[in-house]
Amino acid sequence: MTATMRPTAAPAAPGSLARCRDTVTPALRAAVERLDESSRAISAYHLGWTDANGVPVQGNGGKAVRPALAVLSAQAAGASPETGVPGAVAVELVHNFSLVHDDLMDGDTERRHRPTVWSLYGAPSAILTGDAMLALAQEVVLDSGSPHAIAAGRLLAETTRRLIHGQFLDVSFEQRDDVTLPECVTMAGGKTGALLSGSAAIGAVLAGAPAAVVGALTRYGEEIGLAFQLVDDVLGIWGDPAVTGKPVFSDLRAHKKSLPITYATGHGGATARELAGWLAGAETGDETELARVAGLVESAGGREWAMAEAARRVATAETAIAGLPAGPRAELIEIARFIVGREA
Amino acid sequence: MTATMRPTAAPAAPGSLARCRDTVTPALRAAVERLDESSRAISAYHLGWTDANGVPVQGNGGKAVRPALAVLSAQAAGASPETGVPGAVAVELVHNFSLVHDDLMDGDTERRHRPTVWSLYGAPSAILTGDAMLALAQEVVLDSGSPHAIAAGRLLAETTRRLIHGQFLDVSFEQRDDVTLPECVTMAGGKTGALLSGSAAIGAVLAGAPAAVVGALTRYGEEIGLAFQLVDDVLGIWGDPAVTGKPVFSDLRAHKKSLPITYATGHGGATARELAGWLAGAETGDETELARVAGLVESAGGREWAMAEAARRVATAETAIAGLPAGPRAELIEIARFIVGREA
Repeated sequence: MTATMRPTAAPAAPGSLARCRDTVTPALRAAVERLDESSRAISAYHLGWTDANGVPVQGNGGKAVRPALAVLSAQAAGASPETGVPGAVAVELVHNFSLVHDDLMDGDTERRHRPTVWSLYGAPSAILTGDAMLALAQEVVLDSGSPHAIAAGRLLAETTRRLIHGQFLDVSFEQRDDVTLPECVTMAGGKTGALLSGSAAIGAVLAGAPAAVVGALTRYGEEIGLAFQLVDDVLGIWGDPAVTGKPVFSDLRAHKKSLPITYATGHGGATARELAGWLAGAETGDETELARVAGLVESAGGREWAMAEAARRVATAETAIAGLPAGPRAELIEIARFIVGREA
Repeated sequence: MTATMRPTAAPAAPGSLARCRDTVTPALRAAVERLDESSRAISAYHLGWTDANGVPVQGNGGKAVRPALAVLSAQAAGASPETGVPGAVAVELVHNFSLVHDDLMDGDTERRHRPTVWSLYGAPSAILTGDAMLALAQEVVLDSGSPHAIAAGRLLAETTRRLIHGQFLDVSFEQRDDVTLPECVTMAGGKTGALLSGSAAIGAVLAGAPAAVVGALTRYGEEIGLAFQLVDDVLGIWGDPAVTGKPVFSDLRAHKKSLPITYATGHGGATARELAGWLAGAETGDETELARVAGLVESAGGREWAMAEAARRVATAETAIAGLPAGPRAELIEIARFIVGREA
């Protein structure tokens, strides 16, 4: 048995996620319909709507945190949920564009217990489908009819470029042995913070909200994005494979310079040096060895720091939106707390 | 010696290309400056501004047909060349995004006599740099300050999706033996027609031109796009390697279902059948064999048809813009004629 993460009371997914997903899904499906037949079929598979033979399947399509943020963002600005929908569709498309390209770049063959796009359809199809989703995301925002569509489109493009920057840093870290914690935080801010931040702001932008409201939501999204990544990184070491769908100790197997690991290598004397030495090596080791390495990260404080930092980020996020209307604010807070408590 | 294509009087590049390039380059450089450091460095290399070590080099950056069309498009709508510049930068970025991704998908190791991005920096960097260029293209249009930026951004996104559709068809043709000429024309319309058409229209869209003007320029661009691809395909078989920078008979080596080849397999009795049989096979053959196959395409009428069809498309393009102001129209016509007469 390996030591996996199983809090006694993992919070149930907030009802707002399912409600917002129901609001957004018809528009997302309509957008995907506009794609050429190849991109459309492959996107439908990737989004969990069809199986590998193109046969429709029932699936919940993941947590859909980003579209929910976009919808609640519009409501936090006093607008209707519908005002946020084009933004929600767009951020979900950008998220999935990046997953399709990421899986190819990382050579990952499985996602959510199913073959990844490139492993099923080939690398060219994964590249082209991702490209098509990215172009479509912009189109959806520009077609929204919102008088603030230009600002929303600019936000989407800037967000995408920050996301790409984060991924570039992630790739560059693979060749380095001297990644610092601030660099790692910058990388996570790009890879995860940017899109959660953009998602939390885009509904308000489409609603023409004042800068203070957009700024508060941006800050909220940035902070929960970091919290999201911190928890993701903890799950990447101590997560339960049956729940996460990833191999046990997956990030250790990949020698990934994740946040808890980078914290540990910088904060633990002899343990830190032993860990750094192991990371710099090429061997993966068996499960016993990986459990030992996970123990090193933990005894150097990496796990505790990551969870405390995630909680701190969530608290900052809650403070950032203190001035927003109570209803959407309560749902945004619930989502933030769900993010740090989740198991997958 | 192999039979290469060398018309007696290849037209010199029109002065409008160099003039428009000079107008657009500062804005293109300023846009690329906004990219993250990795995308920026790799884009600068790809665009011919630096060598593989990041050292600035003198280069003319290619023919730059697309940005010239965007600038002339604004002028054809009665606006200043500057009105078209954001559109010109955007279409050049979309063009280069697609080249960077294409080279990776096709496994091509050289472009314009230099190593391709993926072969120099690796596949992940090629994917991410292309993605960043695509996002940036939209940003440039949305930042233009034009009251018609939304329409221009939508045109750009739709154009990109048509381009991707064309590339998907191109990839699918590799696995097929029954590609018809209409299918091949549709593919070329996506792969080349879409972006030349979008380029020829975007300046006018940014200028707020009436639908008739935008429509005429769209049609012009679509037609010269097809002509461009027809000539490209002829050069892919009979082009002079010293001029094109590609290996002799490059498209035959790749068993590519290009326009002249698809025409020939559909129009030549025994010769067509012999050609189709060779295409369906896997062998490449030596230069003598490839010269023989090129002869089959020629005797089945593929070369003559392609050049006649290119000339016909150019004539249609000229007719389409007959009602536009004389100055820009003359330059658009000069570019169209240059496209069919070029050697590389």
